[in-house]
Amino acid sequence: MLNELDKLINLLKRLPGVGSKSAQRIALYLIESPKDYVVTLGDTIKEIKEKLTYCSKCGNLTVGDICSICLDQSRNNQKLCIVAHVPDLWAIDKSGVFNGYYHVLNGLLSPLDGIGPDELFLNNLIERVKELEVKEIIIALPTTVEGEATSIYLKEIIKDFDVKITRIASGIPHGGELEYSDQITLARALEGRHEF
Amino acid sequence: MLNELDKLINLLKRLPGVGSKSAQRIALYLIESPKDYVVTLGDTIKEIKEKLTYCSKCGNLTVGDICSICLDQSRNNQKLCIVAHVPDLWAIDKSGVFNGYYHVLNGLLSPLDGIGPDELFLNNLIERVKELEVKEIIIALPTTVEGEATSIYLKEIIKDFDVKITRIASGIPHGGELEYSDQITLARALEGRHEF
Repeated sequence: MLNELDKLINLLKRLPGVGSKSAQRIALYLIESPKDYVVTLGDTIKEIKEKLTYCSKCGNLTVGDICSICLDQSRNNQKLCIVAHVPDLWAIDKSGVFNGYYHVLNGLLSPLDGIGPDELFLNNLIERVKELEVKEIIIALPTTVEGEATSIYLKEIIKDFDVKITRIASGIPHGGELEYSDQITLARALEGRHEF
Repeated sequence: MLNELDKLINLLKRLPGVGSKSAQRIALYLIESPKDYVVTLGDTIKEIKEKLTYCSKCGNLTVGDICSICLDQSRNNQKLCIVAHVPDLWAIDKSGVFNGYYHVLNGLLSPLDGIGPDELFLNNLIERVKELEVKEIIIALPTTVEGEATSIYLKEIIKDFDVKITRIASGIPHGGELEYSDQITLARALEGRHEF
């Protein structure tokens, strides 16, 4: 096989969900696609890392320093919802049930993978809780081993503050990822949240 | 969702085998990946269309005008193997049973999709058969409706020449794609080829 093609296939294989055969198919598809599309795709991939960063307040993705949700003054500052990843934030926001602020950990505790509290976006959490005058922290982490461990850790560090800690209710299938739940399930889980 | 991310996800969704969720996953993976990798991927995608073209003799992918197989004088010029796509050529060449030349149609007849003989790489086939002094044409097209139709069409346009026309034998599962067959199956299919 040609070196140029081989190089592209090897780079594509590193993408999540793309194996050898898919990488080959994508590479050949690109060769046959209109030049406009291929160049735009290449440029957009290069730009995405430069343009997008994580919000310095909440860990959400943003173009500037502060994300649009943190800049939105109309939200309920007494509620803070902690999620593991940005797509979880999108999913909850789409459900329309929650209008407070978010905190995105960008990960979950997983000692076996070397992910401890320092690897999560956690440093400024207590500060935010005070600043926003939060009355309720809603923990919306997946019901996996890592999610459970992280929930317990969060409860430990928050429990000394005068804040109600809740978790979203069952409704999300056990072991499932928030990101893939439908909006009704997510809305129900939020409405049925309970003391932790 | 952010416009920049939305744009990338929409571009990624056009790739074969990539749906909305995979596109989102790939986009987020890119944001979290080292800059080196992301920039190289973007550049390689942009370059691939400029560097690679189709061989003007056989339709194989090539960096220059003529591909390495057509330039290889040690091959048996009496045998010409017709395949539908470049990965089929790779698969057959890897099997090690065939050492002649190839002709890649880069498609199959499919009137419903508007693909007629003019859309295939066919114009110079007769010329090549004469030039190479081919004694045997091996049709190695998939056993699908389009593959059958194309085989019959090829037989029609070649039959007036003094050339033996063969097809690779069964061994490839019916309705299956050549590209995904293992090497032994492909080798057997080539050895067991029969008059058409």
